[in-house]
Amino acid sequence: MTVTAHATTTFDLGPARALSCRECGHQVPLAAEFACVECFGPLEVSYEFGEITRAAIESGPNSIWRYRDLLPVPSDVDTQPNTEPGLTRLVKADRLAAALGVKSLWVKDDTGNPTHSFKDRVVAVALAAARQLGFTVLACPSTGNLANAVAAAAARAGWESVVLIPSSLERAKVLTTAVYDGALIAVDGNYDDVNRLATELAAEHEDWAFVNVNVRPYYAEGSKTLGYEVAEQLGWRLPDQVVVPVASGAQLTKVDKGFREFTELGLVEAKPYRVFGAQATGCSPVSAAFKAGLDVVSPVKPDTIARSLAIGAPADGPYVLDAVRRTNGAVEDVTDEEVVEGIRLLARTEGIFAETAGGVTVATAKKLIDTGQLDPDAETVLFITGDGLKTLDAVQDRIGPRATVPPSAAAVRKALES
Amino acid sequence: MTVTAHATTTFDLGPARALSCRECGHQVPLAAEFACVECFGPLEVSYEFGEITRAAIESGPNSIWRYRDLLPVPSDVDTQPNTEPGLTRLVKADRLAAALGVKSLWVKDDTGNPTHSFKDRVVAVALAAARQLGFTVLACPSTGNLANAVAAAAARAGWESVVLIPSSLERAKVLTTAVYDGALIAVDGNYDDVNRLATELAAEHEDWAFVNVNVRPYYAEGSKTLGYEVAEQLGWRLPDQVVVPVASGAQLTKVDKGFREFTELGLVEAKPYRVFGAQATGCSPVSAAFKAGLDVVSPVKPDTIARSLAIGAPADGPYVLDAVRRTNGAVEDVTDEEVVEGIRLLARTEGIFAETAGGVTVATAKKLIDTGQLDPDAETVLFITGDGLKTLDAVQDRIGPRATVPPSAAAVRKALES
Repeated sequence: MTVTAHATTTFDLGPARALSCRECGHQVPLAAEFACVECFGPLEVSYEFGEITRAAIESGPNSIWRYRDLLPVPSDVDTQPNTEPGLTRLVKADRLAAALGVKSLWVKDDTGNPTHSFKDRVVAVALAAARQLGFTVLACPSTGNLANAVAAAAARAGWESVVLIPSSLERAKVLTTAVYDGALIAVDGNYDDVNRLATELAAEHEDWAFVNVNVRPYYAEGSKTLGYEVAEQLGWRLPDQVVVPVASGAQLTKVDKGFREFTELGLVEAKPYRVFGAQATGCSPVSAAFKAGLDVVSPVKPDTIARSLAIGAPADGPYVLDAVRRTNGAVEDVTDEEVVEGIRLLARTEGIFAETAGGVTVATAKKLIDTGQLDPDAETVLFITGDGLKTLDAVQDRIGPRATVPPSAAAVRKALES
Repeated sequence: MTVTAHATTTFDLGPARALSCRECGHQVPLAAEFACVECFGPLEVSYEFGEITRAAIESGPNSIWRYRDLLPVPSDVDTQPNTEPGLTRLVKADRLAAALGVKSLWVKDDTGNPTHSFKDRVVAVALAAARQLGFTVLACPSTGNLANAVAAAAARAGWESVVLIPSSLERAKVLTTAVYDGALIAVDGNYDDVNRLATELAAEHEDWAFVNVNVRPYYAEGSKTLGYEVAEQLGWRLPDQVVVPVASGAQLTKVDKGFREFTELGLVEAKPYRVFGAQATGCSPVSAAFKAGLDVVSPVKPDTIARSLAIGAPADGPYVLDAVRRTNGAVEDVTDEEVVEGIRLLARTEGIFAETAGGVTVATAKKLIDTGQLDPDAETVLFITGDGLKTLDAVQDRIGPRATVPPSAAAVRKALES
């Protein structure tokens, strides 16, 4: 889809040079497009990188903008109002490692971002690119984390926002979007309905940047920073194995892309690494395709508590299969019961409270280890990309105070002994 | 209170040298004590700092441990499992500045910490000191943020935790503590009951570090890092004015202490700055004392939605009055209605969703400007120290979707036009 008014090559999007079709390779100038005019394949940003050094990155801001010379954003991006996500903790997870029976384990804890999920990364890049492309409204269809991130980033930038959500969305996610005072519209329908509306509205409104629709190629690049940060935080080297949750699949493919770019640029030594994908069994089309040895992903109707991963027809599914197979990884899936156990295991061993998607990652890592797919002697990184405070419903029936006692020290002592 | 088993001077607490009474100056060796044996005044950590340079700090970890040589922690503190809080965003708040009518405004956004409040800072320092002092259990009485931080830090360290809460606490705060799987005990009583129990249990259990009771002198020092970070993030200089929420008052006095230490160590140029305190009218004993020109703070019975500030008898109240008067600042208070407006103003101008305490800070800043107490032409920093996701109840009746519509683009368009 071409938004003609914006289709020139004069945008300052830093090292970005063109959009290339991932299927047929056809190139078009930088613009607000997302599908190839030749074959309808998805478009991806192509770059011409300058010389990039570790020192230059290290002297940059404590946010994803330290990687601005690797992203489709102008070089002065950090002077424009935006949410400054990134450089979140990489936690050495020795206690979780012991519980899982692996030697060396890290958790990339992305709950520290401004609205507490990795979506702040992709939205920040989308906003920066959309500003260059001439948009003035930030928009999205979403079921939660993306809604929070878009509404917050637009507020910070002084942009209007239009956020479409299914009317059945949980109270916490509605409030945490509404507070930023953009145009939050609840739609009586499911996420597919909302998504379809977004595509329709994007075509009608030249000045609306639907971050995950008409500026998706730029947006998706934000997830590369997860890979960059892990490599930099490990002391400029790649891990042996990573486990990444799979919704649309974009995050996994971009972590892989980040690793490859760092290698090609000489920022890290080349080495083999394995990429694993994690899904909830109630929405596991990519896992199913992987296990069946297929190249195509058949859509499913989601039914899982891991709502932020509940994309039944994942756009990047085939590319996940490519990355996983190329790196000798796998895609695995876990039940909702295992998801909750994963959340609790991470919380009690490392003090990190993840949303359901994080439970999927932890539980999948456990299953991959137990089934011999993940090497317990190799250094592993788990990606925890959202916050448990937003999905309290998933755990509320399983946890609570150990005891409720009268206000006496004796009663407390007795409760602790029992 | 002396825990004899721990009362030696051989602890490695970095630059800390003794505990000094803030009232009579009496010094005792480093130990798990918090009240002066001579006059019952509160004890505070005294230091002998080595040479500390900007370069050394800048080359440290991206957490409060970059300031380890200024804290009562060993120099290898960052090798021990802890939560690594700090180095949260300092946001240039131009849109909020315009709304408030001030020239230069910054927001210190401490919601990016591991459990999303500044309590992670004080708990991390308390855990590090408690480890050196020989404790093995991390404990606290709390009504929310502190409970989250203690339970998470203990889980991460592999320590047992004992967290006492009033049984009436909100569901979100209970769950976000319980998930870490420590000993969470609900007490049928109010916060005063819980606090009294904590003091009683601390005296009985030599190995329990109640972070805000028997290791309070160490714990409180963690808030100095808020001051350090603001100065470093401003480019190694102090702001003209700061507005800090006041619960016990420790945070405000430690931000001031951080500024003074940086000045004495030559890390920033000496300059006058003004410290302002913010309270909710429903619990404003320090504001009342300030306005009445008193040196003592009369306890009140709290009644405000800003529960994390609802300490009716603030331990550091008199020291807040000292700091505020010494720096030509003030203490002001705002109604619950103004608190909610403060939350919404910050959210819609800067994309930051603060808890009620943050609403108190923003609303107080507004009131201080409107009444001519805060200089609109001077550079100002507001401290936002907790997350709106934990206090959704405060805003739930005021915000929501703009409209709920059928799944058609025409319906969305119509809703947006209205």
